[in-house]
Amino acid sequence: MQNRAVRTRGAVLVAAAEQFDRHGYGGTSLSRISTAADLSTGALTFHFPTKDALADAVQWHGRHTTQLVVDGLTELRPPPLRGVVDLTLALAGLLERDVTVRAAARLSRERPGCPAVWCTAWNPALGRLAARVTGGPSPAGAAGPLVALARHLVAGVEVHLRCAAGQEGGLGASPGVQAEIEQIWSLLLHGMDLLK
Amino acid sequence: MQNRAVRTRGAVLVAAAEQFDRHGYGGTSLSRISTAADLSTGALTFHFPTKDALADAVQWHGRHTTQLVVDGLTELRPPPLRGVVDLTLALAGLLERDVTVRAAARLSRERPGCPAVWCTAWNPALGRLAARVTGGPSPAGAAGPLVALARHLVAGVEVHLRCAAGQEGGLGASPGVQAEIEQIWSLLLHGMDLLK
Repeated sequence: MQNRAVRTRGAVLVAAAEQFDRHGYGGTSLSRISTAADLSTGALTFHFPTKDALADAVQWHGRHTTQLVVDGLTELRPPPLRGVVDLTLALAGLLERDVTVRAAARLSRERPGCPAVWCTAWNPALGRLAARVTGGPSPAGAAGPLVALARHLVAGVEVHLRCAAGQEGGLGASPGVQAEIEQIWSLLLHGMDLLK
Repeated sequence: MQNRAVRTRGAVLVAAAEQFDRHGYGGTSLSRISTAADLSTGALTFHFPTKDALADAVQWHGRHTTQLVVDGLTELRPPPLRGVVDLTLALAGLLERDVTVRAAARLSRERPGCPAVWCTAWNPALGRLAARVTGGPSPAGAAGPLVALARHLVAGVEVHLRCAAGQEGGLGASPGVQAEIEQIWSLLLHGMDLLK
């Protein structure tokens, strides 16, 4: 019985993440989630009494998954600029593949009055890596813009995964989000001079 | 009487934009908008019969404002890389200051089955500028990553304007979004070599 309850809880979590990812916090109701999870509202609220409880669970699950990946990456002690690049690639991959991560990212912006849980899984590691990049013979104060750039790239991945317009405007077919991030970093690290 | 109707219509549009910007398409109802506009639902639906009609009006208003700014910028025929930088700065400024632009950007992602109106105001100009940048002695195929970078920066502005987490993680106080975009471009154009 307990295993079945755990399985049901897990299935509800994924169904809720799919709804929050697609319709946002404001556009998702408990009844929408119970329909998606193929459960009665009573059975749903046995596991999660409120929409807020579900949103909390989704955010913390997405944060936990992200933290595991970020810890795995930083434990390898990559050269710091490589680390910043790899961190953005890892986050892009998580956002692309894992619906609880994508929902956690969206909920972290949209829940009124709640802390932005998801970013706390990777912002500190990003800050440490960027500080190590610019701790050498590089220009003072560059850690801020490097952190900002990485955050913009991650935000862009999230937006473009949701935005059909990413493909619009006659700009040609878009590669996968990780390939796109790699191309952008490659331009920045090897080709930007040539554009000047 | 007609002037008053135009004024009311304009006030409803701004009230609707504020609600769509804050709560998204799914989280905004006609009754929420009528409360925000200080009108009865009947008076509201006299001007805009449905939520979709209001969302259309907000999207097209935000798109029109954006198109005017983009046209003004491209008519100056800036050097193309400067043009790409200025375009991202102009879009950041619009997103920061104009609630109909911000709402149009959000609605362009969130409305099920609708074309992403907002991006069509600036994606073509961005594509043309990027093609001119890379039409010279620069690496073949760099237009794609340059366009992708600019789009990620714009998406990042929108996300960070909404995300308190932009300030979290011990990364220090954030400057205004335009100043941040300028710092990122400055790092990319002048400082990236020094980080390697």
